[in-house]
Amino acid sequence: MNKFLITGFSGFVSRHFLKYLESNKIKATIVGLDIRNPESINESFKYIKYDFKKLDLLQKDYVDDIIGEFKPDYILHLASLSSVALSWNEPSQCFINNTNIFLNLLEAVRNHRLSTRILSVGSSEEYGDVKHSDLPVSETHPLSPSNPYAVARVSQEFLAHIYVNGYDLDIIMTRSFNHMGPFQKDIFVVPSFAKQLIIISKHPNKKGELFTGDTNIVKDFSDVRDVVSAYYLLFNKGKKGEIYNVCSGVGISLKKIISIMCEYLDIEVIVKIDPNRIRKSDSKMIIGSNKKLINLGWKQKYQLEDTLSDIINYWKIVEYSHEMHANF
Amino acid sequence: MNKFLITGFSGFVSRHFLKYLESNKIKATIVGLDIRNPESINESFKYIKYDFKKLDLLQKDYVDDIIGEFKPDYILHLASLSSVALSWNEPSQCFINNTNIFLNLLEAVRNHRLSTRILSVGSSEEYGDVKHSDLPVSETHPLSPSNPYAVARVSQEFLAHIYVNGYDLDIIMTRSFNHMGPFQKDIFVVPSFAKQLIIISKHPNKKGELFTGDTNIVKDFSDVRDVVSAYYLLFNKGKKGEIYNVCSGVGISLKKIISIMCEYLDIEVIVKIDPNRIRKSDSKMIIGSNKKLINLGWKQKYQLEDTLSDIINYWKIVEYSHEMHANF
Repeated sequence: MNKFLITGFSGFVSRHFLKYLESNKIKATIVGLDIRNPESINESFKYIKYDFKKLDLLQKDYVDDIIGEFKPDYILHLASLSSVALSWNEPSQCFINNTNIFLNLLEAVRNHRLSTRILSVGSSEEYGDVKHSDLPVSETHPLSPSNPYAVARVSQEFLAHIYVNGYDLDIIMTRSFNHMGPFQKDIFVVPSFAKQLIIISKHPNKKGELFTGDTNIVKDFSDVRDVVSAYYLLFNKGKKGEIYNVCSGVGISLKKIISIMCEYLDIEVIVKIDPNRIRKSDSKMIIGSNKKLINLGWKQKYQLEDTLSDIINYWKIVEYSHEMHANF
Repeated sequence: MNKFLITGFSGFVSRHFLKYLESNKIKATIVGLDIRNPESINESFKYIKYDFKKLDLLQKDYVDDIIGEFKPDYILHLASLSSVALSWNEPSQCFINNTNIFLNLLEAVRNHRLSTRILSVGSSEEYGDVKHSDLPVSETHPLSPSNPYAVARVSQEFLAHIYVNGYDLDIIMTRSFNHMGPFQKDIFVVPSFAKQLIIISKHPNKKGELFTGDTNIVKDFSDVRDVVSAYYLLFNKGKKGEIYNVCSGVGISLKKIISIMCEYLDIEVIVKIDPNRIRKSDSKMIIGSNKKLINLGWKQKYQLEDTLSDIINYWKIVEYSHEMHANF
């Protein structure tokens, strides 16, 4: 029986990680931590059992108590203030919170002398702007963080190295690129498209306007279900102190995502640029190399089209259930 | 009349900065901040006047009030928990304190919409281990911090970039290499040698044992009086958002420093390695390139031999005054 501590338990990545364990019949006891309550989880689990504790990871003593008592074999550290846009509004808070919650976890593991394997989830934002000729970017590329969130992530990674080399903690670091899938909140770009497009698909003429930022932006999107399989693989086969890009290796423009979704929904849209959605110093193109992860045995299962149709179908259900609530 | 806010006011670098302003007849009003009281300053100043406020820079609101009221033209940010050795004992505190005090300053300047020029003092520790073939290391060399203090410094520098690019703050960053001079505390290596050697010089046979760490370590030492002249130059001619090594460009082994001091004192010592003084993951050799600073007009005035004899003479006075106190 594996013991997992998951931070950011109420987020969509954690939810998919649970599903991954269950569907692969991996027996696990889980303690989930989050500052927000999780949405109700409908699935019944046979192989995993979980306990949720609502807390602020900045409460160092509380975190220390929980880790000392539970003695996790693994910590999946997903919690973060991960919005780049918000990080520009509160740069100091973004930096302090993201780095401090990470340090609280590491200090607890160090304090209780545990041999816990920790997965420190980082971000492609750490690379900043990368020259086209250096794409797909590999893990050895210099880091050049260009927003407060990215700086916090780089600091987290440097701190992880210190705790590996200085205190022999067992930490593996990721630089996770964009990921998407069902249950992701609509403050993120793809679900926000899905939600708008579903509304358009209900128009009698199946035509409408979509409000977006810059649709020429190219990012490296993975299906969240492939991402959590990578995280599980890293817990089992990752090398202590190493950094792994978690990415598809393929660049996809937002334009293309919109076009695939429109085709699936059989609608026509006029794209309207909303200046509020243009993000400050956002990089125009980022694609990662996933060779290191693939060498470890990672296999991606989801095609872009399948991911996008699953997202649309998820939002159809959400919208439908909202309508039901509105009607009754 | 220039208005300077100096953090870490009670440290030896600040003291030399004041002396620099005075001896160059630079009129200045100074607010000095420190968590410790400054040692009594005997000099009478004609060109500068200063006001000291004892505070913890982690007190964000207090820092904000002071900066909002004083509206400094320049901030010389010297305050830090700068001991690498101690940073291994309290990694989390070292990181959090060093980065948070810096953020509190930046946020105050941003909040009051000041055009203050800020000198963010960093460290050669940011480079970590550098291959011999890359020495002297220049500002474009990748950073590889290998202790908690160094990670804090790198994070500070990345944060500085964000505040320059994202909020148009006027920040100049240094990577300051080892510096030494009168008034430096004997927790640092050169004054600790000086103190021990002076005691030996009082032995009738002028022989004795010196306890050290690894004396083969080569570092780039500058005279603190050259360092503060660099800081003043950077306030006046440095380019916003740029990083400058502050260093002599020459590597000096601890062995050589001991030998010069022994010659000056006309003593013979047997060097004893004290395992407690060997620092964890300490880099064996670091030399910086000071081309960028020299191109700005920096001139070093102090020869190594002069610096070391000044340090010895300073410690002779300190020891003498201690003896006087003990006798009366």
